[in-house]
Amino acid sequence: MKAVVLLSGGLDSYTAAAAVRAEGYDLSALTVRYGQRHATEVDAARRVASALGISRHVELDVDLGAVGGSSLVGEGAIPTGGLSAGIPSTYVPARNTIFLSLALALAEVTQSQAIVIGANVLDYSGYPDCRRDYLEAFERMAALGTRAGVEGQPVRILAPLLHLTKAEIIGLGRKLGLDYGLTHSCYSPGEEGEPCGVCDSCRLRAKGFAEAGVVDPVVRSR
Amino acid sequence: MKAVVLLSGGLDSYTAAAAVRAEGYDLSALTVRYGQRHATEVDAARRVASALGISRHVELDVDLGAVGGSSLVGEGAIPTGGLSAGIPSTYVPARNTIFLSLALALAEVTQSQAIVIGANVLDYSGYPDCRRDYLEAFERMAALGTRAGVEGQPVRILAPLLHLTKAEIIGLGRKLGLDYGLTHSCYSPGEEGEPCGVCDSCRLRAKGFAEAGVVDPVVRSR
Repeated sequence: MKAVVLLSGGLDSYTAAAAVRAEGYDLSALTVRYGQRHATEVDAARRVASALGISRHVELDVDLGAVGGSSLVGEGAIPTGGLSAGIPSTYVPARNTIFLSLALALAEVTQSQAIVIGANVLDYSGYPDCRRDYLEAFERMAALGTRAGVEGQPVRILAPLLHLTKAEIIGLGRKLGLDYGLTHSCYSPGEEGEPCGVCDSCRLRAKGFAEAGVVDPVVRSR
Repeated sequence: MKAVVLLSGGLDSYTAAAAVRAEGYDLSALTVRYGQRHATEVDAARRVASALGISRHVELDVDLGAVGGSSLVGEGAIPTGGLSAGIPSTYVPARNTIFLSLALALAEVTQSQAIVIGANVLDYSGYPDCRRDYLEAFERMAALGTRAGVEGQPVRILAPLLHLTKAEIIGLGRKLGLDYGLTHSCYSPGEEGEPCGVCDSCRLRAKGFAEAGVVDPVVRSR
């Protein structure tokens, strides 16, 4: 069995990839460079792909900054005041749909049966494109719109972390022997890639490590 | 009402855009440069956008050649032997899904109610991602995965040419006063952008003009 994993360089996609690999899937990886303000995420994705022994790692540039609409692609400041209700300004319009579509193309070309995404219940807080019913709708659309689907081999969307908390994800990763020191989560890192500690992503990560009772190796090493 | 049109520079997307504009939509346009072998299509898209009076025309680069899997992005020769049954080598894996996803992002940012795509019954011959049930499945997925959808303003997919033949499309375009001399359809043009005349796209176009009883201005001018 083969699968394409959407690898961001964060701890979720690393853990999701490792969990699916442990089920026997042979992995290819796709990292989308979509107009992040810095390359730290992409460097982390390369380290993670290497640690997972992935030989085919495709990096694609898509300049979502030309589309706009998100603080993650340069519009307005990244929020640092803590998590709040509703859809945050870091929401990138249609991001997971774009990422899954590109992964769908790679899945067809590599004759993979599945796409792996690290979406989870915490990301779900405010991001509509991390929900189960959305992912199932994507799967149905993909079955109708691809050669593989028409030929009776539809691509499945695997989201093994969907209902796990960040602490549970970290616990799973430890069981799988993952090195989270390779990963990067911050939305707004410093010049040397150091996490800011105050964006939503840093806050979620810190909370997860604290609840898991584990020291974050990225923070410890600094 | 506002809509985002996927503008390729071909006559279908030009006609679809004009038909929707005639219904009162204010248009933005998206052209995806996806690793075509040449820039002729993009030049045509710019001419068409200008003719339609579109002020916001976003061009996005997505290097689908890095993914591969199609003669349209450089793998193998473009077929020239005439149309045949089944999915042709010019099928680009997940292409319309990728294009619609990027248009969905632009639709969210521009607060558009619809996306316009020139898919039609002829393209359907062999391309799974030009069928009604696929487009409806995309619409359902988009309603679940976007801020607009969650907030009760789902984006609709408009495919006004879906059940028209190429000759009927050309007839519609003439009624709308369109100048098909601006457009480009060939998969494999010469150095100065001249159509090859033998690829599937040139054959479909020639057949359409012949059946419509109209001289193709692109061919006439050469």
